[in-house]
Amino acid sequence: MFEFTITARNNRARTGIFTTPHGELLTPLFAPVGTQGVVKMLTPEQLKDLNATLVLGNTYHLYLRPGDELIRDAGGLHKFMQWPRPLLTDSGGFQVFSLSQTRKIDDHGVTFKSHIDGSTHRFTPERSIAIQENLGADIIMAFDECSDPNDHAYTRLAMDRTHRWAERSLRAKRRADQALFGIIQGGVQADLRAASAQFISALDTPGIAIGGLSVGETKEEMHAMLDVMHPYLPENKPRYLMGVGTPEDLIDSVGRGVDIFDCVLPTRLARHHSAFASEGRLNLMNASFARDDRPIDEACDCYTCRTFSRAYLRHLIVAKELLAATLISIHNLRALTRLMEQLRVCIADGSFEARAGEFLKIWHGNAERMRIGNSNE
Amino acid sequence: MFEFTITARNNRARTGIFTTPHGELLTPLFAPVGTQGVVKMLTPEQLKDLNATLVLGNTYHLYLRPGDELIRDAGGLHKFMQWPRPLLTDSGGFQVFSLSQTRKIDDHGVTFKSHIDGSTHRFTPERSIAIQENLGADIIMAFDECSDPNDHAYTRLAMDRTHRWAERSLRAKRRADQALFGIIQGGVQADLRAASAQFISALDTPGIAIGGLSVGETKEEMHAMLDVMHPYLPENKPRYLMGVGTPEDLIDSVGRGVDIFDCVLPTRLARHHSAFASEGRLNLMNASFARDDRPIDEACDCYTCRTFSRAYLRHLIVAKELLAATLISIHNLRALTRLMEQLRVCIADGSFEARAGEFLKIWHGNAERMRIGNSNE
Repeated sequence: MFEFTITARNNRARTGIFTTPHGELLTPLFAPVGTQGVVKMLTPEQLKDLNATLVLGNTYHLYLRPGDELIRDAGGLHKFMQWPRPLLTDSGGFQVFSLSQTRKIDDHGVTFKSHIDGSTHRFTPERSIAIQENLGADIIMAFDECSDPNDHAYTRLAMDRTHRWAERSLRAKRRADQALFGIIQGGVQADLRAASAQFISALDTPGIAIGGLSVGETKEEMHAMLDVMHPYLPENKPRYLMGVGTPEDLIDSVGRGVDIFDCVLPTRLARHHSAFASEGRLNLMNASFARDDRPIDEACDCYTCRTFSRAYLRHLIVAKELLAATLISIHNLRALTRLMEQLRVCIADGSFEARAGEFLKIWHGNAERMRIGNSNE
Repeated sequence: MFEFTITARNNRARTGIFTTPHGELLTPLFAPVGTQGVVKMLTPEQLKDLNATLVLGNTYHLYLRPGDELIRDAGGLHKFMQWPRPLLTDSGGFQVFSLSQTRKIDDHGVTFKSHIDGSTHRFTPERSIAIQENLGADIIMAFDECSDPNDHAYTRLAMDRTHRWAERSLRAKRRADQALFGIIQGGVQADLRAASAQFISALDTPGIAIGGLSVGETKEEMHAMLDVMHPYLPENKPRYLMGVGTPEDLIDSVGRGVDIFDCVLPTRLARHHSAFASEGRLNLMNASFARDDRPIDEACDCYTCRTFSRAYLRHLIVAKELLAATLISIHNLRALTRLMEQLRVCIADGSFEARAGEFLKIWHGNAERMRIGNSNE
């Protein structure tokens, strides 16, 4: 059911087709994040229009509200949120560690308090898989622990636990129509990353996730870790770099062999009036746009750029009209989706390596990451 | 340029076609309100999809922000907000009297303070027309004074002033591609309403607006005023009842010969999770909808009802996801737009009078008005 076919290669960069029950995914791809069963402020129609294919849901959030059993009884997350294309859910681990104030971890699982009402809950690998089976996404994640990347001793501990939890997640899994990915951890420690890549790659899963990056380390550290892991990653499985990222991170990581990305950045930036643009990231509230009749990006083909001026978007922002966030979200998501389409073309025609520098130059002014560690997007 | 052709009659109810520079309007019709150059949280595409034709903009708001000259320089309001169908702007009078804390009225005009920053501004009939010419809507309004409907002595004063201002508005008008409507005032006083209807009807305008209703009076008072004015209204001009209303008010008023309506009610209700439904108005935050897989209204053909369950909408509301307001706005606007389509069919086939009671019964559970007098939509 979950075949991954590589269709072209440029050194480590590759294009592929990943088959899921809800359709084929062309990789490399960027997946918008629909934390609570909705990509914030966008309809499924608008997501389809900007050519989103894979969409993320967050297990932690959906478990707490509206509840995974409610979603199961409603026919699963695809039907509940009316997204007919592939879905991916994370394991809940990252949110338990970043959002919950109080948590107690042991080898069997994590007890934590809800960030919504303070109620006590417990996740184990078995529980995370059961919840994700209720949600019914095409791609699901093993339960993992994402630790402080700079604490080598603890990161080893957390990594070992993540490995045992990956095995337990795999054993707990019942549904044949979901692809379970194990998650590589190991912080920014080369020896741990290598060990974790070997361990997770050896599991019988249709794909590999890379966790614990883009959580505060430098770009150089992230690149180094991708380079360290690469030799151990099987060629024939898609690689998913969780929580990444900026346009540059996408280009750099595609060049290092990554196939799937997700990040809240495009929609969160949009809610802060910030738009990706080839001339550098724009804060559309800036007074200099008051009479600017150009679209956000002349080169963009999104609904927002085809329709509205910067002057109108600035007016909506200043007048506190929430449609601004919808329109900028459409643009920012389309910018990354379109970038991935362009990279796929370049990989297919063999020009990726030659043109990566050119793409990086175009997107250089959009390099700044946002802190996302402690967020509830 | 502004021809009004009556195509069918059922006693006082009638269907018509009003020709404007941006297309024909089929009446009776309901116009969504786009106070600040946007129908809150909806794209023009979504408005076209629900078959909105005429959209309102508010002169007071657009003058203050982003400024009518900015909009003129951007090519006018149609281009600025990318609404290709007809637009209507009010005169700013109603907002000056309802939103501005400090205002001083004299026979020449009104001096008021901005509700945004307290800065001082002055509107006169000539200024209102100049602003509306900068905005460039197809239908514009004479500057008027909307007074406390229960103060007979003052209402006469305000009405007389409104009449003189209507004449001045008409003299000030320069653009041939805009239809100026005079506004009937007179509170809930039969003698004043009759006098005002006669005066405004005698002006050389392509349409007649009825102001000062749905501002706190009872439904019976509103009906009585419509009945009092009716004999004086010319058959061959469209009649626009400003700020109305609920589904019942629309049905009742169409039966009393009204052709055009606008109201913030559908979108404001939506932002408070309240949806029009034939079973009565629904508050979709209610826990009883948590597992309700039906659409808001089984009989509705809107995008929201064709796509999403009440359970999903309730989840979005509880999770504070703003897409809920967008989706319920689509439904509420479509409910009124569709009601007007149905009434047009009934008038055309002669069944309106026989079926009005049936329509009133369907919509009876949606009767409650919202206070809109002091609002910023």
